[in-house]
Amino acid sequence: MRDLLITIDGLQYANWSPAIFRQMREGGVSAVHATICYHENFRETLANLTAWRRRFDRYAKFIFHGRTADDVRRAQAEGRTAIFFGFQNCSPIEDDIGLVEIWHELGVRFMQLSYNNQSLLASGCYEAEDSGITRMGREVIREMNRVGLVIDMSHSGERSTLQAIELSERPIAISHANPAFWHAINRNKSDGVLKALAESGGMIGFSLYPHHLRGGSACRLEDFCAMVAQCAERFGVDHLGIGSDLCQDQPNEVLTWMRNGRWTKASDDAALSFPAQPEWFRDNRDFGKIAAGLRGVGFSTDDVASIMGGNWLRFFEVSFGPMPSSRRGDDDAGRT
Amino acid sequence: MRDLLITIDGLQYANWSPAIFRQMREGGVSAVHATICYHENFRETLANLTAWRRRFDRYAKFIFHGRTADDVRRAQAEGRTAIFFGFQNCSPIEDDIGLVEIWHELGVRFMQLSYNNQSLLASGCYEAEDSGITRMGREVIREMNRVGLVIDMSHSGERSTLQAIELSERPIAISHANPAFWHAINRNKSDGVLKALAESGGMIGFSLYPHHLRGGSACRLEDFCAMVAQCAERFGVDHLGIGSDLCQDQPNEVLTWMRNGRWTKASDDAALSFPAQPEWFRDNRDFGKIAAGLRGVGFSTDDVASIMGGNWLRFFEVSFGPMPSSRRGDDDAGRT
Repeated sequence: MRDLLITIDGLQYANWSPAIFRQMREGGVSAVHATICYHENFRETLANLTAWRRRFDRYAKFIFHGRTADDVRRAQAEGRTAIFFGFQNCSPIEDDIGLVEIWHELGVRFMQLSYNNQSLLASGCYEAEDSGITRMGREVIREMNRVGLVIDMSHSGERSTLQAIELSERPIAISHANPAFWHAINRNKSDGVLKALAESGGMIGFSLYPHHLRGGSACRLEDFCAMVAQCAERFGVDHLGIGSDLCQDQPNEVLTWMRNGRWTKASDDAALSFPAQPEWFRDNRDFGKIAAGLRGVGFSTDDVASIMGGNWLRFFEVSFGPMPSSRRGDDDAGRT
Repeated sequence: MRDLLITIDGLQYANWSPAIFRQMREGGVSAVHATICYHENFRETLANLTAWRRRFDRYAKFIFHGRTADDVRRAQAEGRTAIFFGFQNCSPIEDDIGLVEIWHELGVRFMQLSYNNQSLLASGCYEAEDSGITRMGREVIREMNRVGLVIDMSHSGERSTLQAIELSERPIAISHANPAFWHAINRNKSDGVLKALAESGGMIGFSLYPHHLRGGSACRLEDFCAMVAQCAERFGVDHLGIGSDLCQDQPNEVLTWMRNGRWTKASDDAALSFPAQPEWFRDNRDFGKIAAGLRGVGFSTDDVASIMGGNWLRFFEVSFGPMPSSRRGDDDAGRT
């Protein structure tokens, strides 16, 4: 049975509030992948997670903790939004592969292997060079595959991303980025990456963050939707979704944390500010405009439904549980 | 004034005990660089450091905490051994450049940028590829230079090591390794590295760990000393010291921690055991045999004194304090 008319956002990092949860309901958003870590270590991320549990208690009318694809259908049936947890970095597992399983048990569903910089697992998209997946990274990919924690390579380097796709026995995600053929910046992805991603059953969520858009804040909806249509032609419609990267209501200091973490003493990013969203995508109430825009560039109703949420839902379905035993026998020969 | 007859060991990691401290005294060892971390994080390393403070209290007759080159002379004058702290990995600073200064204040004097694997700062000697010093690594090298925490590249990859030598404004150390021309394993160092190290005023400590020796546990003293003589010819005698890597009285489980940390679920190293030391270097009482061996291959008394401790002492002298202001003005132009 096709799941029609389900809206899923593949990434948000808002300054969460009841106002935003209400907008999710007004926009008919059934599921959001919410970032709960940029550079936080285990304990700090756990504090972010428990803060979410308090929100789930307090705002149960709007939101609940999503752990499975069925939770998205339940959210839609109940008129609520399922919040799926994800990390933009591997800092919450620190140096301990044993924490992968712990986080999955606590309901985390996505983890980026690196965020802009080199991590213990992979290189980031702003390093001068990328030597690919590390020794620990290979072990962690196997463990993420085993438990059902999705590998997300949104902020990783090109070579690390290609290797992650190859090494992972399960499809991976690029939860929020755009194609470099449309807007050539380090954070957007090459055709080589997007082709390998699609061929392996992976997903890309198109970003609405102005720096990732051709034309920035002035990008027009028609241009964005025409880019999606080009991607459908090149990579197939089944691997496309939305990952808005909406950073709603965040103070500018948050940008300094995202960019600088604790790894540099530089303070010259202090004057940074979040760019203005395009006028056609201000918040969660605007997903309908994207759906209409996609119809406007010629997508069928079914295809629009797939891009707005159906594809992510199918990906959630096969990604969040333990690895099917048929895919991982006792014989480890051939794996290094 | 030349410091003659001072013995300094550039690295040990023993299962510390009063018996070992007594042997240090019997061997006339005035200073030892002692490892206080392999994979430990900030808090765990702090526990190792406070355990040392209890040892300093209890065994003050034998040992005290060394922080400066003068402490080595004081140790010699008082017939004690000054213990200098070092990390074999950058895990104690976690992801926080601010911890470099904290550790220096707490009396740590050496930090390896990586241990076998990729770290947040540099690649390790057992990674398949080495992309050099990372974005964070460049920042941390500057900070280590500033406060006087010595960069140690004993377990790092070749390219990372060459870059560290180039980026660092102060001489660096390879506290425990041997030349690859003598025994070609990943952990030993190429002529290219040793040449760049010497030209920049750095130090290598020759290792007595059997895996680093040609012939392993059966390596003969004459062969070891002939290797040192070859290094003196190739790189100059001023950059050579001892870094015995003595892992005395350690249980074999410690090897599993060193090798596997928490980064892999592999357990097939459980059966590993420490190799037997060569019969001519069993413990701290045997440094005199090395000195005699060096005289035996033709080194002068002065040169033997330099290799056994004088070179390390001169290196300590220029390395452990804050960066001289003449070398770091307000003008940061040219540094990236």
